[in-house]
Amino acid sequence: MRIAIDAMGGDHAPKEVVLGAIEAVKLNKDLHITLIGNEETIKAHLESNISSIDIIHTTEVITSEDEPVRAVRRKKNASMVLMAQEVKEGRADACISAGNTGALMSAGLFVVGRIEGIDRPALSPTLPTLDGSGFLLLDVGANVDAKPEHLVQYAIMGSIYAKEVRGIENPRIGLMNIGTEAGKGNDLVKKTYERLQQAPIHFVGNIESRDLLNGEADVVVADGFTGNIALKTIEGTAMSMFSMIKDTLMSNWKSKLAAGMIKNDLRGLRDKLDYSEYGGAALFGLASPVIKAHGSSNARAIVNAINQAVYMVEHNVNATIEETVYRLNQEEDNR
Amino acid sequence: MRIAIDAMGGDHAPKEVVLGAIEAVKLNKDLHITLIGNEETIKAHLESNISSIDIIHTTEVITSEDEPVRAVRRKKNASMVLMAQEVKEGRADACISAGNTGALMSAGLFVVGRIEGIDRPALSPTLPTLDGSGFLLLDVGANVDAKPEHLVQYAIMGSIYAKEVRGIENPRIGLMNIGTEAGKGNDLVKKTYERLQQAPIHFVGNIESRDLLNGEADVVVADGFTGNIALKTIEGTAMSMFSMIKDTLMSNWKSKLAAGMIKNDLRGLRDKLDYSEYGGAALFGLASPVIKAHGSSNARAIVNAINQAVYMVEHNVNATIEETVYRLNQEEDNR
Repeated sequence: MRIAIDAMGGDHAPKEVVLGAIEAVKLNKDLHITLIGNEETIKAHLESNISSIDIIHTTEVITSEDEPVRAVRRKKNASMVLMAQEVKEGRADACISAGNTGALMSAGLFVVGRIEGIDRPALSPTLPTLDGSGFLLLDVGANVDAKPEHLVQYAIMGSIYAKEVRGIENPRIGLMNIGTEAGKGNDLVKKTYERLQQAPIHFVGNIESRDLLNGEADVVVADGFTGNIALKTIEGTAMSMFSMIKDTLMSNWKSKLAAGMIKNDLRGLRDKLDYSEYGGAALFGLASPVIKAHGSSNARAIVNAINQAVYMVEHNVNATIEETVYRLNQEEDNR
Repeated sequence: MRIAIDAMGGDHAPKEVVLGAIEAVKLNKDLHITLIGNEETIKAHLESNISSIDIIHTTEVITSEDEPVRAVRRKKNASMVLMAQEVKEGRADACISAGNTGALMSAGLFVVGRIEGIDRPALSPTLPTLDGSGFLLLDVGANVDAKPEHLVQYAIMGSIYAKEVRGIENPRIGLMNIGTEAGKGNDLVKKTYERLQQAPIHFVGNIESRDLLNGEADVVVADGFTGNIALKTIEGTAMSMFSMIKDTLMSNWKSKLAAGMIKNDLRGLRDKLDYSEYGGAALFGLASPVIKAHGSSNARAIVNAINQAVYMVEHNVNATIEETVYRLNQEEDNR
């Protein structure tokens, strides 16, 4: 199996990306990784020549300031664009970048290409739950003006991923909404609710955003705008609380003493909320697996993203999505 | 000043509602409160006859299980409906309920009535920020399929409230969005962004939901669906984290010892996040102030909601909204 990785994407690139790649090929003898980026700076972090890692040299990069669509169209030799081409042209089975999210979505759409029958790709991170099992949230921003049929496709793609990659037998699919009862919500979710009841998935109804971290569903679907708002509200609230806890614990000598005693426990709590543990955010609906690793990824997060890509390839997630959507469209045509 | 209160609404009604009312009239000699509900159970909590509190007796109530619109239409003698009528018929200047939110929105719309020129009312709680100043979020669910013009009206109403009631000289108004740059977001927020730039407010641009608790704006506008998702995600994440902290602190003898030492500090943290401190959620766009107190309101939260209503009446918030909207509509017609 071959995986192409944008070595220049992310806050700690190329160092942590390279270290992650080294770790991954050590753990998996069948894996070959192509790193795309500045050969000289990449080589500075490669202990020696590793036969299962090669490099495609380029000095062009897409930065976080670049306007996504324009950058992908104009920076033809950017590490991210060359990475996507490796997949497009069959030299890699999947690709990973920790760089500009919007640009990766554009590269996925314009270079890798969509699965036939999927109208819009969805960006799908796995978020932590209290019980540690996690849930897949999609979409978190690939498609901000979604229609009911898009959300149904998200549900199908998420269900296949949860089953094939996460090993959940009959994944519970929920619809993010402002109430649990049927008939709640805006026009989009009301229409989506009805369609999800007919879809070939285990639909468990509406999930209130208050209950997202309680693990009531394995997959939660939302339009990209709402999903992004929820994702970033979780992140922002958690960060704010950690900052408040820190201030509280540093406020007097007694709390400082107590803080010393529970430092490791609190770090464990932080790790529990760290969703890079679950790999990156997959872009579903593209012809091959494309993974967005978190911008702040360290080597460990890169290893997790690589493992996720390996699983998606080994379990034929993209082919299964394609076949399922094809079959459903056939059935619909026959009605 | 006269305020009508639904004595039967909320998880701790009528006791905490009555105790809150007693406290409020003790603090404010100019205040007269009408409690609406079961006279017998109300009187059980009234120490003695207090001249500035009277009771309208009724045994009918709207419960949290009632379907809002139907309940308001059919339960003509429900405490909440009679409360709204006190305002409608001029016997009260404002009203407060901790009961069924949807029913209160319906009672507001159908009984109290809208301000002319406001298309849709907005439900607007004040949420905590790290610096303790708080921000007004609207709408959190009164209008789930909003149009750009509705969001502009929310911005104007929020700005007037922040200035008149919260005493902020030049309130900063933000638009909840998935990125900070202009041009980000779905169709609704893109159109709203352009209009907000023209509106007679101090528009500070997009606010990412990740930054909601950082106090970057005094007022944040969103459609009711998105606002509700954000509100409940904040609540859910904060509750999940408190539960995880508790589990962490109870996990071993050392952490238990530390927990004992910082119990009060952590309680302080919890209070900081307790938005009943800021009063209830105002329903803006109605002819008179209508306040939704939190369902779990204790006497203190009721006092805060009463003070909020008093401020809204004293500072003519509703009249100012009406005049401002009227003037803007005139200007638009003259163009």
